[in-house]
Amino acid sequence: MTLDLAAIRAAHVTIRPHIHRTPVLTSARLDAATGGSLFFKCENFQKTGAFKARGATNAVLALSAADAAHGVATHSSGNHAAALARAARLRGIPAHVVMPSNSTASKIRAVEGYGGMITFCEPTAQAREETCASVITRTGAVLIHPFTDERVMAGQGTVAVELIEDIPALDVLLCPVGGGGLLAGTLIAAKNLRPQIQVIAVEPSGADDAARAFSTGKRAAVEHPVTIADGLRTTIGQPNFEIMRQHVEAVVTVSDEAIVAAMRAIWETLKIVVEPSAAVTYAALIEGKVTSAGRRTGLIVSGGNVDLDALPWMNRSFR
Amino acid sequence: MTLDLAAIRAAHVTIRPHIHRTPVLTSARLDAATGGSLFFKCENFQKTGAFKARGATNAVLALSAADAAHGVATHSSGNHAAALARAARLRGIPAHVVMPSNSTASKIRAVEGYGGMITFCEPTAQAREETCASVITRTGAVLIHPFTDERVMAGQGTVAVELIEDIPALDVLLCPVGGGGLLAGTLIAAKNLRPQIQVIAVEPSGADDAARAFSTGKRAAVEHPVTIADGLRTTIGQPNFEIMRQHVEAVVTVSDEAIVAAMRAIWETLKIVVEPSAAVTYAALIEGKVTSAGRRTGLIVSGGNVDLDALPWMNRSFR
Repeated sequence: MTLDLAAIRAAHVTIRPHIHRTPVLTSARLDAATGGSLFFKCENFQKTGAFKARGATNAVLALSAADAAHGVATHSSGNHAAALARAARLRGIPAHVVMPSNSTASKIRAVEGYGGMITFCEPTAQAREETCASVITRTGAVLIHPFTDERVMAGQGTVAVELIEDIPALDVLLCPVGGGGLLAGTLIAAKNLRPQIQVIAVEPSGADDAARAFSTGKRAAVEHPVTIADGLRTTIGQPNFEIMRQHVEAVVTVSDEAIVAAMRAIWETLKIVVEPSAAVTYAALIEGKVTSAGRRTGLIVSGGNVDLDALPWMNRSFR
Repeated sequence: MTLDLAAIRAAHVTIRPHIHRTPVLTSARLDAATGGSLFFKCENFQKTGAFKARGATNAVLALSAADAAHGVATHSSGNHAAALARAARLRGIPAHVVMPSNSTASKIRAVEGYGGMITFCEPTAQAREETCASVITRTGAVLIHPFTDERVMAGQGTVAVELIEDIPALDVLLCPVGGGGLLAGTLIAAKNLRPQIQVIAVEPSGADDAARAFSTGKRAAVEHPVTIADGLRTTIGQPNFEIMRQHVEAVVTVSDEAIVAAMRAIWETLKIVVEPSAAVTYAALIEGKVTSAGRRTGLIVSGGNVDLDALPWMNRSFR
């Protein structure tokens, strides 16, 4: 398969019975604050609390019976792990998940809750990959990569399909970028459905590898990413980067201060629980990195999995 | 007017252009936890962040031009104050709001944000009523009482109308009770639309005047209400009590511990921001005061206005 609109539409047919069609929320107050018309696509309401349920479900259901026989495996500290565990359970196969030993308790509980089998490893990229390789050797499971897998990207692209179905006349679409699975799917879906739309990727300034890659043409990891947006610390994947450079309008960065302010504004005004990574798109508006004045702007709210005991505004540095 | 289904339907026609039709959320996880089918009517998404927008808007728009000429007045530390200020602004008349001097900053900002004119008073029931009377004498404004006003009750009844339109086959409807405006409207709407429905009122055990009144037949204030559910500390009104005793199935009380646990479960699972008073209905399920096993149970989620700097699980006594 190649990642095109047909693949994304096929993914939508496959996953629709197993996911929520999430609502698009609006707010007169946030519109007034930004001078535009904002449309929040609320993937925090998605199964497993994040858009990751879409891609993982598509990838698992797309496996042949032979490939699925020994289960699936991945390495992830976050939402992809829970999404893959749930997708595997839907299909009745095991999910092996390699998680760094410093993963948060709530993420571990989520994977366990969906029946995932966890192998802990040291919290380094090298340890994650090595441990995952050894789990695959031992079990015969198929790797479902969190963002370079085309079936995953196709599943993530269904977010934009639904948003544009609901709000056809969008001018701009703001999308978070970490590994680039959501961004790649969003770009292919949005630019095919509505060629004049501007898709703008947003990432934290403390993990700005995608912005650097976009301006230099070369992908390179940020050695020590520092950002509250834990879902966006990852380096963009190679296929994701290639799709991004071809279709994206711009890649902008936002400060952690703006992310926390945006997250809080969303909680207070929209009355929804969103995680820091999901607030970067609105942060781009409040930090003036993108203007929405007079434009219909879609914002992908990627997830809502937060530790309610450690909210960022409890942290003195964000007050 | 008398409070009947026709009055509630008329209120709905009046206020519909000015309020949100709020969604009804469901959760496979919360259903599994309780053994029933739960339907959360999300008034936290309502204009001003609470169902109070319905009653205040109906009352203000129902005024004759002569009555409206000098504006409206009320005393409230909470959501009715902001709702009345917004409703008055819709009509282009002043809103005079008497608030206790210890009101939270966010509630004060909300009233100011809608253009309400605040008079502060000592935080006692007597001071509130005296100050409100003197404001009315001075300005000629019309009093819009937060829950004994029939136009207010009729507006609040539209919550149940919408919920039963969306989920016609409800068996049980759980409704918070403070002053009883929402409960009175809910009872008249629900029992007329679906006579076999059981409406159960829920209140905090630290402010259990409605439960006592229901069992003794006599209304009496709890002298020092102690509960985290700040919207439910009020004593039930006389007309509200009369409607309650005639139509309610039961009045149950819940502990503050259960309220905090319910609030947290709703935030974590439904990914929505709700205030403590809005969580009492789910608290009744997790504390075993009501069983939902095998029944379709509606829960009115009354509002979402919380101080994000002072969430109850930050407080050691609820850990």
